Amino acid sequence: MSTLRIDMTMSLDGYVAGPDQSLDDPLGKGGEALHEWMLATQSWRERHGQEGGEATVDDRYAAAWNENVGATIMGRNMFGPIRGSWQDDEWRGWWGEDPPYHTPVFVLTHHERAPLAMEGGTTFHFVTDGIESALAQAVAAADGKDVLIGGGASAAQQYLLSGLVDELTVHVVPVLLGRGERLFDHLDGGPVGLEPVELVASPAVAHFRYARAG
Amino acid sequence: MSTLRIDMTMSLDGYVAGPDQSLDDPLGKGGEALHEWMLATQSWRERHGQEGGEATVDDRYAAAWNENVGATIMGRNMFGPIRGSWQDDEWRGWWGEDPPYHTPVFVLTHHERAPLAMEGGTTFHFVTDGIESALAQAVAAADGKDVLIGGGASAAQQYLLSGLVDELTVHVVPVLLGRGERLFDHLDGGPVGLEPVELVASPAVAHFRYARAG
Repeated sequence: MSTLRIDMTMSLDGYVAGPDQSLDDPLGKGGEALHEWMLATQSWRERHGQEGGEATVDDRYAAAWNENVGATIMGRNMFGPIRGSWQDDEWRGWWGEDPPYHTPVFVLTHHERAPLAMEGGTTFHFVTDGIESALAQAVAAADGKDVLIGGGASAAQQYLLSGLVDELTVHVVPVLLGRGERLFDHLDGGPVGLEPVELVASPAVAHFRYARAG
Repeated sequence: MSTLRIDMTMSLDGYVAGPDQSLDDPLGKGGEALHEWMLATQSWRERHGQEGGEATVDDRYAAAWNENVGATIMGRNMFGPIRGSWQDDEWRGWWGEDPPYHTPVFVLTHHERAPLAMEGGTTFHFVTDGIESALAQAVAAADGKDVLIGGGASAAQQYLLSGLVDELTVHVVPVLLGRGERLFDHLDGGPVGLEPVELVASPAVAHFRYARAG
């Protein structure tokens, strides 16, 4: 039994990415401010071969982000800015040759493409037959470990609407982006069936964690 | 110089009131869950003649809500469910004969009505010539003390858009309302000019405080 998790950072005004995402602005305008809290943590710095950082409550959440993750699911915008069919296979993702996932990654798209193996254990699989198929494939690949929804907003919303999410963690930063992609949107009154299990904060970010109601 | 403050509680998914506000549901469906954190604080309980409650960080914020407030401004929905012209003067607000404001309260409305004096120092004044007029009247009445925007979402948005707000405090509770009145909406890319000055949390609520950028 894999646990299906969503773990995303949101501005206080509700955005998980800024507006006008592009090749130069993968997180949208101002979006990089969302993730500063994570870059300051000890576990992030260790993972990237840097010294320093503090072992705070933020560090616990930064470390938990990819702990025990066996497979990742993401929307197409999280893989790249290209729309429509894959014109060629040159685009290999935002993430460089060694993406931070180190697992199979299932990319939701309407356009078929052969799997793409990167360094460090990340292989991108392109799934064209919907979120339940992507989840089934991710669960099989995860082999008992967790399946993480890597974002973005639209992919998270589709899984929240499906009622299949076991755990939702939202890191709220005191940033006011003003525009962008809202996490809690297009949810038809949801999410439902999730109950709060933890709220803790540092001066930089408040962590809200929910679990599926028993 | 009065400080213009907004101080509101919001669900994690962005709502400061539930949907379908009515005589029976002044906070909208589910909206009462927003304010449970405040009812548990020592200062709220003392103010209402009850014993108990804990002197937590939440208590500090609950106490600060109406500290040094000399006048209050609110949107019409915060005064009552009546729309259009005042049919009669029977409606005296949601708040009972001794409203919790204990100051002059300026109600934004399109429809004139004579001032309404309640017990405990609250007098409702009905302002029909816009938010700047309401603010000028509130500042005069506050006599150097703070002016508090009491809500709701629309009134808060109008003042945030005006750039006149000196201090914004948002209490975020781990409630998912799904529908209702969003605080951060209709803001045309704003709010701008506010910088974060504090983020603290209890297990019940995270307090985000902003001040006008220097």
